[in-house]
Amino acid sequence: MSDQMIMRVNEQALKDFCFRVFCQVGVCEEDARLTADLSVAADLRGVASHGVAHLRRYAEGLRAGTIVARPQERVVTETPVTAVIDAGAGLGHPVSYRAMQRAIDKARQVGVGFVSVRNSNHHGILANYAMMALPHDCVGMAMTNASSKVMPTFGRKPTLGTNPIAIAAPAGTQRPFVLDMATSAVALGKIEIADQLSKSIPEGWAMYKDGAPATDSHRAMDEFKRNLGAGLLSLGGAGELHGGHKGYGLAIAVEIFAALLSGAAPSPLTYPKTPEGKPGHANIGHFFGAWRVDCFRPMAEFKKAMDEYQQSLKDVPKAPGQDRIYIHGEKEFEAEERNRREGVPINRTVAADLRKLAHEFQLESVV
Amino acid sequence: MSDQMIMRVNEQALKDFCFRVFCQVGVCEEDARLTADLSVAADLRGVASHGVAHLRRYAEGLRAGTIVARPQERVVTETPVTAVIDAGAGLGHPVSYRAMQRAIDKARQVGVGFVSVRNSNHHGILANYAMMALPHDCVGMAMTNASSKVMPTFGRKPTLGTNPIAIAAPAGTQRPFVLDMATSAVALGKIEIADQLSKSIPEGWAMYKDGAPATDSHRAMDEFKRNLGAGLLSLGGAGELHGGHKGYGLAIAVEIFAALLSGAAPSPLTYPKTPEGKPGHANIGHFFGAWRVDCFRPMAEFKKAMDEYQQSLKDVPKAPGQDRIYIHGEKEFEAEERNRREGVPINRTVAADLRKLAHEFQLESVV
Repeated sequence: MSDQMIMRVNEQALKDFCFRVFCQVGVCEEDARLTADLSVAADLRGVASHGVAHLRRYAEGLRAGTIVARPQERVVTETPVTAVIDAGAGLGHPVSYRAMQRAIDKARQVGVGFVSVRNSNHHGILANYAMMALPHDCVGMAMTNASSKVMPTFGRKPTLGTNPIAIAAPAGTQRPFVLDMATSAVALGKIEIADQLSKSIPEGWAMYKDGAPATDSHRAMDEFKRNLGAGLLSLGGAGELHGGHKGYGLAIAVEIFAALLSGAAPSPLTYPKTPEGKPGHANIGHFFGAWRVDCFRPMAEFKKAMDEYQQSLKDVPKAPGQDRIYIHGEKEFEAEERNRREGVPINRTVAADLRKLAHEFQLESVV
Repeated sequence: MSDQMIMRVNEQALKDFCFRVFCQVGVCEEDARLTADLSVAADLRGVASHGVAHLRRYAEGLRAGTIVARPQERVVTETPVTAVIDAGAGLGHPVSYRAMQRAIDKARQVGVGFVSVRNSNHHGILANYAMMALPHDCVGMAMTNASSKVMPTFGRKPTLGTNPIAIAAPAGTQRPFVLDMATSAVALGKIEIADQLSKSIPEGWAMYKDGAPATDSHRAMDEFKRNLGAGLLSLGGAGELHGGHKGYGLAIAVEIFAALLSGAAPSPLTYPKTPEGKPGHANIGHFFGAWRVDCFRPMAEFKKAMDEYQQSLKDVPKAPGQDRIYIHGEKEFEAEERNRREGVPINRTVAADLRKLAHEFQLESVV
């Protein structure tokens, strides 16, 4: 990313800009604020692929009505420890925020809480939601399905989403553990970057449409862009030799929790067409959970155990050529600290688009 | 395994044999029966590495007192939706069975249930416990930590267990989905087999003690057996190129749920020595969970969605050289059907050991 980084933008100004765009396309202030803040939070954590880079897509979807600006969000069914929310085809971020908050409220009251969401949209980085559990002394979990990009093991048609899983657990003096991982070997973004830099990609990331291992990033991206049938490989790669069936199994598990339990569409049907062949309402599914730590063990004991455990991993002798062992979330916390200090990093392409959006929405540009 | 398979044993006779061995070393009848049945269930499902092959190890541990034959199993803390059980250093199978049953009971009553176990032992295949949820129309989950065999990403000392995860979800006319996967790229058993067959192993499975990629199965197994510091790699392999940090993250997540929430030992400390340097009581941790489907969606709808989803995966065009796409658990269900018909497959090495055990325990041999 550093190749492309050209500027740093004031965090609050960027949030306010996104907020105004959302308001102009009809989103209520609460949801506009949530989506703006959660989008910029992704860029702050260094995950530019899931942040304000999506602002145009969201704004255009809202304007076209494929994303509903004022959705009828409703609780479909609820118990003291579970709920299903229908997002009404609105933005994914605000409903996810509220669903995770509901899971946490249940955990605070009863011990655990799980909320599944249907008829939703792309909602940025999962870590945003799993991490909401941390200040409440809960372990948090989030999952989502997504449009089909990944091959099932032994198959050659993208049928699974990158179906990520996030788990966040609080620690004491150490940083919390924050895992946020696609169940594919890599995200499509890595192949996009290789394509832009004219670099080859290693076997084990993707397959061409004919099922052969993809190594030419240009050909792979071309097949992806034209929807010809190229696909990402599951975590563990092609076949079963390196455990590709495990990544494939995790993707199915996410599909079960996020889509089949809530009644959302499975990955191949997440972005349907209308009978006229136009883009319809998305029907993405999410799953959020929270476990209250002190239902299992006193919080102080758990935090101490987390600190000691994480430190013991960092203290492991390093592999040849390596000088540091990371705990999940560490890189992102460090990026966030730097970016809060120096400004949100925005790359050339996204900056140009934000300027264009400023012009279109008659707002002052922040980049 | 087929190379080594020499005989098929009557299922009930094998279960009774194991039961008698456990009784003779002081285990109560209920626990002896559960451990015998759950052990043979692994062999029935074709997972010979986790079945009666462990009988000697369990029997000797029970005789030596490192596994407590009549443990003080007790509920440490409990809420309507959570519990922590101290296994009292007894056998892992019976406490796991009861813990999962308790999680299911909570799910039946309240909607979800989670039970974490500490001071436990090896408990065979995780699928045994996750699948207990199926007849109760629940989604089941099980996790366990284990002794250190896996390198953290960028490290070169085994510090993580193979820390498996199992998830089982009911279907309608299709078989249920049953994922049971180590979070390492492969199990040590695969390297053992390559060693026995004098075959090399592919890069991405393991590291020698010096941190170089292991390809010579003899050298790798020698370093493993002598505890010199060789280690398995996480799902995704070495480094981050193919997502090894994801398998590493999942292993930490299992450690958090199974060990840190319950107060069990983290993987490197699961099998401690006594002050005299002898083997002490193990302190393995497990985590079991159940979600009642109809708290989210009517069971009939869910089953139909599971059937359609699984069928849609099987219908995907096949990769070159492949003629079938599997759903997790299918291979094991098919093995179980065959083995119930033809007898439990027992390989030469295990058969010899069972005969020796029969002699030692003055029982009639069943192999």
